[in-house]
Amino acid sequence: MNILVVNCGSSSLKFQLIDSETEQVSASGNCERIGLDGKITYKAHGDKFVTETDLPEHGIAIKKVLELLVDKERGVINSLDEIHAVGHRMVHGGEKFSSSVVITEDVIKDIESCNDLAPLHNPANILGVRACQEAMPGVKHVAVFDTAFHQTMPAKAYLYGLPKEYYEKYGVRRYGFHGTSHSFVSKRLAELAGLDYNNSKMIVCHIGSGASISAIKDGKSIDTSMGMTPLEGLVMGTRSGDIDPAIIEFICQKENISVSEMTTILNKKSGVLGLSGVSNDFRDLVDARESGNKDAANALDVLVYRIVKYIGAYYMALGGVDAIALTAGAGENNKEVREMIMEGISALGVKIDEKANQTRGEEILLSTKDSKVPVWIVPTNEELAIARETARLVK
Amino acid sequence: MNILVVNCGSSSLKFQLIDSETEQVSASGNCERIGLDGKITYKAHGDKFVTETDLPEHGIAIKKVLELLVDKERGVINSLDEIHAVGHRMVHGGEKFSSSVVITEDVIKDIESCNDLAPLHNPANILGVRACQEAMPGVKHVAVFDTAFHQTMPAKAYLYGLPKEYYEKYGVRRYGFHGTSHSFVSKRLAELAGLDYNNSKMIVCHIGSGASISAIKDGKSIDTSMGMTPLEGLVMGTRSGDIDPAIIEFICQKENISVSEMTTILNKKSGVLGLSGVSNDFRDLVDARESGNKDAANALDVLVYRIVKYIGAYYMALGGVDAIALTAGAGENNKEVREMIMEGISALGVKIDEKANQTRGEEILLSTKDSKVPVWIVPTNEELAIARETARLVK
Repeated sequence: MNILVVNCGSSSLKFQLIDSETEQVSASGNCERIGLDGKITYKAHGDKFVTETDLPEHGIAIKKVLELLVDKERGVINSLDEIHAVGHRMVHGGEKFSSSVVITEDVIKDIESCNDLAPLHNPANILGVRACQEAMPGVKHVAVFDTAFHQTMPAKAYLYGLPKEYYEKYGVRRYGFHGTSHSFVSKRLAELAGLDYNNSKMIVCHIGSGASISAIKDGKSIDTSMGMTPLEGLVMGTRSGDIDPAIIEFICQKENISVSEMTTILNKKSGVLGLSGVSNDFRDLVDARESGNKDAANALDVLVYRIVKYIGAYYMALGGVDAIALTAGAGENNKEVREMIMEGISALGVKIDEKANQTRGEEILLSTKDSKVPVWIVPTNEELAIARETARLVK
Repeated sequence: MNILVVNCGSSSLKFQLIDSETEQVSASGNCERIGLDGKITYKAHGDKFVTETDLPEHGIAIKKVLELLVDKERGVINSLDEIHAVGHRMVHGGEKFSSSVVITEDVIKDIESCNDLAPLHNPANILGVRACQEAMPGVKHVAVFDTAFHQTMPAKAYLYGLPKEYYEKYGVRRYGFHGTSHSFVSKRLAELAGLDYNNSKMIVCHIGSGASISAIKDGKSIDTSMGMTPLEGLVMGTRSGDIDPAIIEFICQKENISVSEMTTILNKKSGVLGLSGVSNDFRDLVDARESGNKDAANALDVLVYRIVKYIGAYYMALGGVDAIALTAGAGENNKEVREMIMEGISALGVKIDEKANQTRGEEILLSTKDSKVPVWIVPTNEELAIARETARLVK
């Protein structure tokens, strides 16, 4: 069964066509600058094809993608009938969605009712669904939510120390994100570490430019570092993660800016970019540190120290830990960051396997065999996870 | 040597007269509603004396306290010459003060330079110093800072994931508070647990209405849960502690309030009070939970779960832990909260001694003898710690 996986942003549309039996990607790519001018990058048959073309709206973008997929020369299928279902990445499902769901008009209404919580992302996701429904009216469309996996968190983990009416009236609580990744990686980690998924304690560290950690007990997320929005938790590429909440008023007054401008700074100009003044890319920081840049070294220290503290917090929340996974950009590829993390969690009795740490993007046991807790590198694959969910629901 | 310990708020002045040799308190009390009407509570000779009297400003308040101390009937000293030094509790020493200091005009200027960071507390503290200097010009005055003990934190613990100019221009960083308590309790914990203070890993949990946890390695604070202000970290009586920073803009918009009003809500109307709608007093929550109040039960769960996660974070930051102390209001007196904490940190191999947990305000080993990490109840005594610091500096 061919599943088209779609991830829509306000001016972008990423896609992969995945065979759910072989789990191979036959074509992938993305449309950029939708509504501005337009650019399509398309990969298939081992080739990459880039074209600048007018993309006034998402409907046109998806049509051009479909034309490429059935194109005599560049295509990978003979007709659109060979696309059996479409899986959509949805950012925020609020408390409405604790699992993936086949999209109906009622589902779209429920997703729209969560727009408040993700005002930039959800409307774009829905735009993508509408465009794909119009272009492929005959197939089922499935919504796979970034938040769904974390809906199993207990109240003590999702409630903030805030007036309770904020939760009751506005849904202010921890939701968590990267759920598709945490779910995918934790399932694979259980296999690799020889654990019973439904009777295990795992910590998954998704360390990319956006980053989050989750605590997974008996196959269920019991806590995660991102919160009501993806701003909370770890220090990220450009996001601050946790700060003293009183800092916001302090800076608003000092810099004479609005709380909205401050929130934008916390999302876009903070994190290791803000701390280092160098880059939001962890590899650049490693290079800068090697050239003697003290701010870059500090930024890496702060980044890793926060990760280490969250692992400790979740170790305690889980009542122990059977296995740990590192995944996403830095987790899969950055040996310096991995080395620092492993050193930071030495209290767990883990040591790094230096040879394993030389690999990039491979499934491998990162800890030595005599480590008390196995730490695995487990590459994530959110598109494949979405394809699997979609196939499961449309079968 | 008699040390007068003074703790000044904007409309209050608390005091204790302590003999630094015997460490006994001969008189104590507080002046309230200074600048409004005025009320003095004074305890000595086992008696409590309350009087409503005009207290237009701190200078009058301290004079009335001194009159009581030398009063023929109620007094405990014959003349003011028997007060040998005054120790002042100061809230915020910024990066200027990493230890206590004899107060000079230059010191006051340096404290004033930190006013920005504690706009409510520092000016009140200085008012108290000025009033006491005028009333007792012949003795030395010592400033003991709430922040000083934490000045040993490394950059990775005190830097936030924020643009670095906020630190450089405005001093935005983690300072931590309750330092006098964390220092006092950790020293005593080392004695009780038979540890070498300068070669040990300890976690001190100061769990009062204001609450903070610190990680102390080799006698030095390496991290603490309060931040630039006392708002960050644990869920407290009325303070939110950590939240997703994006919540502030969200609520400002929903409730049409300013960031300043929101910060006040986070400080005064949040925490377990906000969560439960019942009380900011943990004992009231235990009672309410027993009467079946679900919100009170949730508030206690959230309170304790956050404590448990911080203990985990600091366990990892320290690379292990040799001993843990519980102190302050709930730490010393609330057996239900203590029981929940001990259950939460069972991953450390600790079990509660049910009999020890029945005590209130006593130094006692709370964990069973076969626990892997000893957990002690260690009553804090910030006034005594201030008296000790003062005596040390004026000798």
